[in-house]
Amino acid sequence: MPHEGLLDPQGKTVLNNLKHLHLSDVSDVRIGRHVSMQFEAANAEEAKEKVETACQKLLANLIVETYRYEIKEG
Amino acid sequence: MPHEGLLDPQGKTVLNNLKHLHLSDVSDVRIGRHVSMQFEAANAEEAKEKVETACQKLLANLIVETYRYEIKEG
Repeated sequence: MPHEGLLDPQGKTVLNNLKHLHLSDVSDVRIGRHVSMQFEAANAEEAKEKVETACQKLLANLIVETYRYEIKEG
Repeated sequence: MPHEGLLDPQGKTVLNNLKHLHLSDVSDVRIGRHVSMQFEAANAEEAKEKVETACQKLLANLIVETYRYEIKEG
């Protein structure tokens, strides 16, 4: 997701278009990326480490984006 | 998110690049959009209706994408 303080032009465009669908009481829209990743890990800690590595080194642009994640076993 | 059966070239590229981060046991990556929307609704049902309208008429391309959502009060 874009950082709180940053403009999100894509979100702003969607917000404006929602008004044409009679959804005029929407006050804010922000748009980011959703990444789903399947991988193997020995335990929860290793899984977390791998996700952090992937987020920090490849998936997120930390200058303009924040990230959060959920790890699901299965 | 792209439909299950469809190729996701963006996800495939990320998957290939993860191997350079020594994350070679990742088996699948799929990339979609994450939209966060703030709005007013009288009750949970109205909230759900509004989100469905937004998803079906504007946010998701139902031919190639699936969507799911969570509604949080606050």
